[in-house]
Order: sequence, then structure tokens, then C-alpha cells
Amino acid sequence: MKIVTEKTITDIKNIKAAGFISGLKKSGKKDFAIIYSEKEAVAAATFTKNKVKAAPVLMDMEHIKSENTQAIVINSGNANACNGAQGLEDAKTMAKEAATILNLKPEEVLVSSTGRIGVPMPMDIIKAGIVKGCAELSYQGGGDAAEAIMTTDTFPKSIFVETEIGGKVVSIGAIAKGSGMIHPDMGTMLGFIVTDVNISKELLSKALKATVNDSYNMVSVDGDTSTNDTVIVLANGAAENTKITEENEDYLKFKEALEFVNKDLAKKIAKDGEGATRLIQCEIHNAASDLDARTCAKSVITSSLVKAAFFGGDANWGRIMCSLGYSGANLDPNKIDIGFVDGDRVVKIVENGFETNFDKEEVHQIILRDEVYIDIDLKDGKAGAVAWGCDLTYGYVEINGTYEL
Amino acid sequence: MKIVTEKTITDIKNIKAAGFISGLKKSGKKDFAIIYSEKEAVAAATFTKNKVKAAPVLMDMEHIKSENTQAIVINSGNANACNGAQGLEDAKTMAKEAATILNLKPEEVLVSSTGRIGVPMPMDIIKAGIVKGCAELSYQGGGDAAEAIMTTDTFPKSIFVETEIGGKVVSIGAIAKGSGMIHPDMGTMLGFIVTDVNISKELLSKALKATVNDSYNMVSVDGDTSTNDTVIVLANGAAENTKITEENEDYLKFKEALEFVNKDLAKKIAKDGEGATRLIQCEIHNAASDLDARTCAKSVITSSLVKAAFFGGDANWGRIMCSLGYSGANLDPNKIDIGFVDGDRVVKIVENGFETNFDKEEVHQIILRDEVYIDIDLKDGKAGAVAWGCDLTYGYVEINGTYEL
Repeated sequence: MKIVTEKTITDIKNIKAAGFISGLKKSGKKDFAIIYSEKEAVAAATFTKNKVKAAPVLMDMEHIKSENTQAIVINSGNANACNGAQGLEDAKTMAKEAATILNLKPEEVLVSSTGRIGVPMPMDIIKAGIVKGCAELSYQGGGDAAEAIMTTDTFPKSIFVETEIGGKVVSIGAIAKGSGMIHPDMGTMLGFIVTDVNISKELLSKALKATVNDSYNMVSVDGDTSTNDTVIVLANGAAENTKITEENEDYLKFKEALEFVNKDLAKKIAKDGEGATRLIQCEIHNAASDLDARTCAKSVITSSLVKAAFFGGDANWGRIMCSLGYSGANLDPNKIDIGFVDGDRVVKIVENGFETNFDKEEVHQIILRDEVYIDIDLKDGKAGAVAWGCDLTYGYVEINGTYEL
Repeated sequence: MKIVTEKTITDIKNIKAAGFISGLKKSGKKDFAIIYSEKEAVAAATFTKNKVKAAPVLMDMEHIKSENTQAIVINSGNANACNGAQGLEDAKTMAKEAATILNLKPEEVLVSSTGRIGVPMPMDIIKAGIVKGCAELSYQGGGDAAEAIMTTDTFPKSIFVETEIGGKVVSIGAIAKGSGMIHPDMGTMLGFIVTDVNISKELLSKALKATVNDSYNMVSVDGDTSTNDTVIVLANGAAENTKITEENEDYLKFKEALEFVNKDLAKKIAKDGEGATRLIQCEIHNAASDLDARTCAKSVITSSLVKAAFFGGDANWGRIMCSLGYSGANLDPNKIDIGFVDGDRVVKIVENGFETNFDKEEVHQIILRDEVYIDIDLKDGKAGAVAWGCDLTYGYVEINGTYEL
């Protein structure tokens, strides 16, 4: 598998995209995108588990059942959440209008929205956006689409990989957005993946679910699960590999590439969390079970006290121990090692539950880097997990604690 | 039941206390307290559920089994957590030294510590503190003790109530501390309650557990459960009421007063959360079950996005709906009403899941008050719950994100 940095989603065969300004955002930034597969494609998706689900999520949960999915219409600037029956009607209108222009059935179109909750969708702007977007679809539009789905993201998140499956080059391109706001508002995680792999809908769905669990689901910026979180993958088969219909070697190879893509985007989302100055990765080794490992990793990167300590460059291992202790996971405090990764080595600051005689200034400098890697050994079993988060800063409070009438 | 504002714990019959500077805190503030009952007393306690438990918590879990408990030794400035066998030895030494001077058995003494994790206890200072504290015990020492247990608390937390049980005046006095730090550090909740009620140890324990659940356990400042959290109640029987040995009317009256005391201290702790500018109370009405009500109330006041919105005075109900939705509680988003309490009335901002036509500026002003009361009706059953938190501010980041080598 290789990473191709200069390529994006529209470098996948038969994939077109567009990204532009429709006028939804007060800032005047790009706010509308369409991703389109000229060829028929199978799709899989995972949606927020929040009981308060945005209208497009509710609609997509039905549309994803379609055997064919060829378009995704995306807007930023309005979440279309808590808008009741009208919201659902608006989401359906978005799918229908795009379907008409693209000569598809409405259920072959998915819709994603992100922005403030509880604001009616300005359907005149949305409808004009759909017309414009369908007209502007091109093989060069991937970069614009990556920009158009951003809210307070400070950089577009994109990844492209190639692998060989059954003698054919298979590509996966993906874009994502992390937490952001337009007004002081709700952040949302959206991810859109396109691939030319030839695969059954069932196995595409299986691969997505398996890889989402260890990637996006291991990210926390602030512990708040959005009403709109969505990850969609479209596979149009243009790579012409022998169709993957069982969990064979080809499937594992595709899944591996998909996992890489999802973890890469997950890390980028964590790194670009609201107000963040650094990425925090927490890797757990030798936990009693997968669940214990995952619970510990997420507890550390979710703790406000740990996050604030890392903002200050403070190797406050007591807070890490504490967050492990209240996580609910099985562990023995007196067996825990904690360290920070510095290139090839791990600088241990806790061994068997006690502080080592570490160099405070050296570790302070390690924690001040853009990316901080915490390494925790529970010595309790063989399971491991990795989670990604960011520091808690004045910037987070400023972004989310500023009020404009 | 009446609140007596001018009284404190040492106004309970046969209760003495001391609070003073032992030299544990670099700031030179009071850091050592002893509470002592001249009469034999029964005790009950609840401790942190964190798997990483401080040494005094581990020791107290044994000592609390004693039929008699007459003294509590408390230090701030060092948590005595993650100090291994030496930490436990030090906690035992603290109990033993105090017991010797006060002519008690070691197991009749409890110990509480709060401060930075993983720093060895300076036992010379501690031992001198015990000698001094035992010598200075007095019927006027309650106020000093309330001060000595503070860390970054901005005001001492104290409450005193009187009620009549079996024709006798029964008093309950209590002091507590909330989240704080000496260095950028771990916050800890400590609460110490003394009462002259005559009650069996079993029922005292039952009353404490029942009331802790709806008071301290419904508070969140930052979602981090400390290694040292402890609530202890001592009952010395000096009120000479007929001993409470069953769940009769006397028991219910005592429990009611104890519940008032615990809720009062819980609110004070939330209000004085690190960096907080305002108290946030969230009351849930008509939930399907007690668990649903509690889960919803805590989810709202724990959400970083909700907390930041309240710092800015933003009635961002989308964030409240979102935090209800991901709480895991049973609810129907389309039935939810959300409002803010303004004196006798509730200003509804959401009705059946949708925004009402509320006056934005009026609600903005309500949210800018020192105490903000959110009122949520789930219309799903008959259960209710109340939780207390505070806003998320630049101050929290400053307190916890500043590093000194």
C-alpha cells in the first residue's frame, strides 16, 4: 500500500466532485459540496448514536439500504437538526432535487449537513446550491469539496492510498471534517470515502464498521457526540478487480487500506480539534481485554485535567493515573508504566505505579511538541488500543464560550 | 428544620476542632485540621470509586469498620496517592500518632489528604502538625478547620442545621472542600459532617449513602473523579434523643436534614469549581426512570460545550439537546421542553423539541447571573433529578494548564 499525497477523491476513476460558496455561511467561505460516481456504486455508512439525530442522518439511514448509491450532497452552515418534520422534508427535497438532475432515484443520493442546530434550512439557497453543484461536478473538484465541508477546521483533511488487489491497482480517497462552528455551535465529524474497489455492499459495510471502531470512534475533542456524525464510503468497482464477496485475502487487503485511511483522518480530526495546539495519542499495551484497552485509552484523552496539563506541557502523570482509575476498566494501579514516545524510545515517567527519576525538563520539551505520544503498559494481558485527542486551551473556551446575539 | 448561619461544626456538643498552618503548602496558607469528638461516636463514610485510591482512603476503608470513631486528621497540600506501601505506612502513622495523644485506638482515627499525587508525605511536618493540632483542639476551631481543608477553593464551605427529633434538638454541622490545586494538580472533594444525633452505625451509614447519591454524586466540575474523594459523618449522640435503630419517623427526619446539608455543600462545591463564574443547576422532570433522570441531568452539566456556552451567556439549546441525546438515557427528542428558571416562572426556550419564540436578550441576561437554573421536562414518566455544575472558563484552563518546573 502506498500513500499518494498529490491525489484526492476525484483521482478515483469515475468520481467527480464540486465544492463552492452557496451563501449558507456568513463568513462567505465555501459551504456546499457534491460527490458523484458516474458508475453505479455500493455504499456503506455509520451514523451518530446520539438519540437526537439530524434530519439527513434519519433519511440516510433509509437511503443507505439502496443497492446503488451514486451521490452525496453536503452542506456546512446548518445542521438541519431539531427541525422536525420540515427538516426531514428538506433533507428529502435535497436528495430528490439532486437525483432529478443526475438522473438517479432519490434513494441513490445521500445528504450530510453540519452547522448550528435548530435553524430552519434556507431551501432557496440549498436548491440553488444543488443546481450549481451538479453543473460544476468535475474530475478536479476533490480539493474544493474537502474545503467546502470545513467549518472551524484550520486545514482540509484528505488522504489517498493505492494498493494492489487481485492484480489490479485499487485506490481509496477520502475527505473529512472535524469539530467546528459557525456561530458558537456544535461540532460534527463527517467523513466521505470513495474507492474504485469492486466489492459487495455487505462486505463494504463490514469493512467500514470494523475500521470505524478503531479510528473515528477512538477520537475525542470534547466528549460531545454530535447529532450529525456520519461516515460514508462509496465503492464503484472501476478498478475492475475480481469482485470481493467473501472475507478472503483481497478483503483483508482492502480492509487494511481502509483502516489506514480512517486512522489517518481520525488523527487529523483530533489534531485540528477546536482550539487545539497539539495532537495527543494514547496507546495502551497489555490490557486484560480489548474493551479495557479501549476504555483506558479514551479515558486518558478525554480527561479535561489531562488535556489542560498537556496544554501547559506538564507531565502530570497523577492525572493520567487518575483517569485510568476512574475509567471503569480492569487494571492494577501498581503494575502501570507510563511513558512518552521520543522517536524510537519511550521515556518512562511512571514504573509500576511510581514516578521514575525522569528528567523533568526533557519531558516538558517532549510534551510541548505538536504531537505527543503517551505509551501506557498495564501488564495485565495482551490487548491494546490507541485513541487520539487534543489539548484543552483558551482557544476552545474562546470558540465555544463567545456569544453573539 | 432551621439553618443556623452563625454556627459551625464545633457548635455541636462535645465536638472540638483545630485548623492551622503546618507548612505543607508553599503558599503559607492553612493546611492542617483535626476534628475530634470528646464522646464516643459512630461514623459512616463514602469513598471514591476510582480504582487508583489514595493511601488514607485505603486505610479509612478499614478503620471505618470500628464501632467507635472519634477523630479525623486532615491535611491539604499532599494527596498521599500513588505512594505505594510507604504511603499506606504514612497514613497509618498519622492515625497512630493522633490516637496516642488523644488516648484512642488507631482504628478510631480517620485520615484524609488532598493535594498533588505521587509526592512522598513529608512526615516530619505531618507529625508536628498532629502534635500541634491535638494541642489546639477547641470548641471555637470549626471555622479554622473549614479554612484549612481548602485548596484552590475561593470560599470555605460550611453549613449548620438544627431539627427536632424525639423532643430533642439535633444539630448537624458540616464542612467541605471542592476542586482545587496547589501546583497544577488534581482536585478532590472532601466533606466532613458531625452531628449529635443518637443513631446506630448501621442507620447512619444508610442515611449517608442515600443522601450522597443525590448530592455530591450529582456534582461535576470537570468529569474527573479524584483518587481521594471522601465524605465522613460522625454522630456522637450528645443530643440524647432516643437512639435511632430503625427506619422510623426520627430516622426520616434526620435523613431529611442530612440530605439538606449534603445538597447545600454539593451546590457550594459546584459554584466554586475551578475557574467557575457561575453555578449551573439542571433539573430533570418526568423522566421514565430515576436512572434516566440522573443520567440526563449529569450529561447536561458535564458537557464541555454546554459549560462553555454558559460562560458566554449563550442559550445554546442545541448543545443541551445534543448532550441529552448522547447521554444514553431513554427519551424522545420530540417531547422535550427546555427552559430557564427566572424567579417563580420558567422561560421556555424549547417546546416539544423545537425552539420557542423566546426573547434572546432576556434569556442572555438570565444566563449571565451567578446561578443559572435549567429546567427540562422529558414528558416520559414521573422521575426527576437535579445535578450541579459550573461553566467552563479561561480560568479553568489557566488553573490546570499552567506549568511550573
